[in-house]
Amino acid sequence: MFTTTADVCGWLADRRAANEYWVKEVPLEKMDGWRIRPGGDIAHRTGRFYTVTGLEVTGADRPVGAWQQPIIDQPEIGVLGILVKRFNGVPHCLLQAKMEPGNVNMLELSPTVQATKSNYTRAHGGKSVPYLDYFLAPRGGTVLFDALQSEQGAWFLAKRNRNMIVEATGDVPVLPDFCWVSFEQVGELLRIDNMMNMDTRTVLSGAAVLRQASDDEDERPRHSVADLLSWFTEAKARSSMTRRRIPLSAVSEWDYENGTITHRDERHFTVLGLEVRASNREVSGWSQPMIAPRGQGVVAFLGKRVQGTTHLLIQARTEAGAFDTVEMAPTVQCLPDNYKDLPDQPPFLRDVLSAPASRIRFDSVHSEEGGRFFHAQNRYMFVELPQDEPEPDLPENFVWMTPRQLMGFVRYGNHLNVEARSLVACLGLSADSPSHEERSVA
Amino acid sequence: MFTTTADVCGWLADRRAANEYWVKEVPLEKMDGWRIRPGGDIAHRTGRFYTVTGLEVTGADRPVGAWQQPIIDQPEIGVLGILVKRFNGVPHCLLQAKMEPGNVNMLELSPTVQATKSNYTRAHGGKSVPYLDYFLAPRGGTVLFDALQSEQGAWFLAKRNRNMIVEATGDVPVLPDFCWVSFEQVGELLRIDNMMNMDTRTVLSGAAVLRQASDDEDERPRHSVADLLSWFTEAKARSSMTRRRIPLSAVSEWDYENGTITHRDERHFTVLGLEVRASNREVSGWSQPMIAPRGQGVVAFLGKRVQGTTHLLIQARTEAGAFDTVEMAPTVQCLPDNYKDLPDQPPFLRDVLSAPASRIRFDSVHSEEGGRFFHAQNRYMFVELPQDEPEPDLPENFVWMTPRQLMGFVRYGNHLNVEARSLVACLGLSADSPSHEERSVA
Repeated sequence: MFTTTADVCGWLADRRAANEYWVKEVPLEKMDGWRIRPGGDIAHRTGRFYTVTGLEVTGADRPVGAWQQPIIDQPEIGVLGILVKRFNGVPHCLLQAKMEPGNVNMLELSPTVQATKSNYTRAHGGKSVPYLDYFLAPRGGTVLFDALQSEQGAWFLAKRNRNMIVEATGDVPVLPDFCWVSFEQVGELLRIDNMMNMDTRTVLSGAAVLRQASDDEDERPRHSVADLLSWFTEAKARSSMTRRRIPLSAVSEWDYENGTITHRDERHFTVLGLEVRASNREVSGWSQPMIAPRGQGVVAFLGKRVQGTTHLLIQARTEAGAFDTVEMAPTVQCLPDNYKDLPDQPPFLRDVLSAPASRIRFDSVHSEEGGRFFHAQNRYMFVELPQDEPEPDLPENFVWMTPRQLMGFVRYGNHLNVEARSLVACLGLSADSPSHEERSVA
Repeated sequence: MFTTTADVCGWLADRRAANEYWVKEVPLEKMDGWRIRPGGDIAHRTGRFYTVTGLEVTGADRPVGAWQQPIIDQPEIGVLGILVKRFNGVPHCLLQAKMEPGNVNMLELSPTVQATKSNYTRAHGGKSVPYLDYFLAPRGGTVLFDALQSEQGAWFLAKRNRNMIVEATGDVPVLPDFCWVSFEQVGELLRIDNMMNMDTRTVLSGAAVLRQASDDEDERPRHSVADLLSWFTEAKARSSMTRRRIPLSAVSEWDYENGTITHRDERHFTVLGLEVRASNREVSGWSQPMIAPRGQGVVAFLGKRVQGTTHLLIQARTEAGAFDTVEMAPTVQCLPDNYKDLPDQPPFLRDVLSAPASRIRFDSVHSEEGGRFFHAQNRYMFVELPQDEPEPDLPENFVWMTPRQLMGFVRYGNHLNVEARSLVACLGLSADSPSHEERSVA
């Protein structure tokens, strides 16, 4: 057990020093174990893990309505699970110091279990997945949260993982590379850059929901839940997006050159190959294709007090790979570099980036899944609009809702995208969150 | 306004007599406006409305895990909307006497609006859809319920419609073929065979939810909502079903003969062509392909009092065409004729069909969507298990939940299949429902 958050950081640094990691970019066609199929799709020679393929999108409810792009196809549902146990009545999360080749700092804190179906059915031919028995039925422990949740709709084709929180009652042996962290420490760690990996954050959004559920209900929301569900249904019904898989080599505006796949205007992302060595992973060395976004992204909620209650501005966002086309997303979610030299900027981006420090309530850089995305960092922010200015006009795909209302949608799955869930975890579990403030006001 | 339910029936008979309907089976290749594409798919010559195509299913969590079948592909999201208005404080639904060629009695009561996107964007070249303005934004009235809901997963490929209930405040002119019916009358009409069409029933499941919400909360459920969501997530994660569209003429075990498509063993359903004339539809005459199931189906909840609270036995059911593979379904949902001469019967079918009248709490025959399905009747039942017998062992895809818990899932869409929603409407709105009984006990 750690006394302070600094102890956790020290332990993670020790784990980093105790193992050896080595990552090198290699041309896509030189990756060991992978092959380029006729048509250009990049697949593992076993046909498992994932494939980089092409997608054609038309009729999207976005500034640019039609495009083609490379995308990762991984149809299996994996398990992301955090084991919770009370010590002297205080619930703690069992987290793992896990190396992923796409992490800027190699090691971050991952959930207790972070396993694709290929992982836990041993497609790797590697070690078994520790603690998996707590998450697969018939399981030991009590399920507190269990939902299928989507992952990055810009880069994944309808990818979903099972997000689980299970409370253990009996003794839980702590293996090397694992540690117990209290929720208070979790909240502090979420404020530190690149400590909590994406899988930890999405599972923790479920924990934010659980903590929220026991709060008082004194808030005065602008809209009823029925209104919000109707707004969401309307956005889905409005969408006439169609998606079609196409061969990767047929994707227009993208070029395969020098062993990587890049966008003609150097926007969006690059598909590159990595060669990896690690001393503490299931397999000691492997190669894999990854998506490397261009520049650092911005993921932000704009907030405002309405009728004395904090509201967040939520976007119904159409994404190429989203399981059901449209999901609830943060106010701002973009790679600003994509809009360089373009006249139209994403709505509210300027409000976020030009806010003075006094109105920035949360501001940390976190990485997306380091097992698929290379150095994919986003600046996660919560920015308050000035109280004395009139409310901004909203495009039809934006709506105000309270943190409690937003969290109410998390448990049903398929409502919030992964970026919104990351922010929900950050705001719901860190000390200076909007929901905490409501309580102090109430 | 009607004084009694008999008045509604009389009015519907009058409407039936005031118009002329004429339906004739024609060979699929002779349907006006439709053509057989290379590969055998049956499509409208405009490419709109819907297509009958083939589907290959593998890895389904069902007694038979792999098969091929014809299926209807209609990717658009239509609107099913009921307009509600209070008269002297009593809410009434605006229903329509609507002819559908697949109805056994031609005319049934449909929602205020029942429109495919083709309908309301005038692909028919027909009349405009009355009352549609109440349901499309910016709308008059207050949205009470609004969710995307699936339709028959056995016959539709990922078909969903927007189910809406909107309350009007101002004057609403009543057009011919429309009438106001109170919720009390709705409850009685749901007990009469083939009066309330499928679209009315699925929208009314949302009304059952609204009425439920204001009830007391004295029930003692066997499982928490978190447990139920976990059971549902687990069923989805367990599924390894894959689906692939194939040309209709490539579907094995099905034959195109004498202008219809039939299963080799005369099971499941027939695809047939209809020629239709009606004096009060948007277009006076048309042809269309339809699915005609073999025999009458059984759709039933088994119920039992557990800890003094009525519980329903719910099935996590894998269906070929379900939007997300698995949905919450009634205890029993099958065509018994499919199991003639087979050793294994569906679980709990015998418990339902052999129950004495004293344990049958609901028993009405209703038809599925008469615009796509020909004489597709199901016997909808609610049967109580004997109190003095031990609980039956449950297969892993069955679970007990209370009517309130089940209804709680309706508003989020994609949880209950259309057969379960029909039963929820029947039980939630008819007088002798389980939830009403709970109140009297409490």
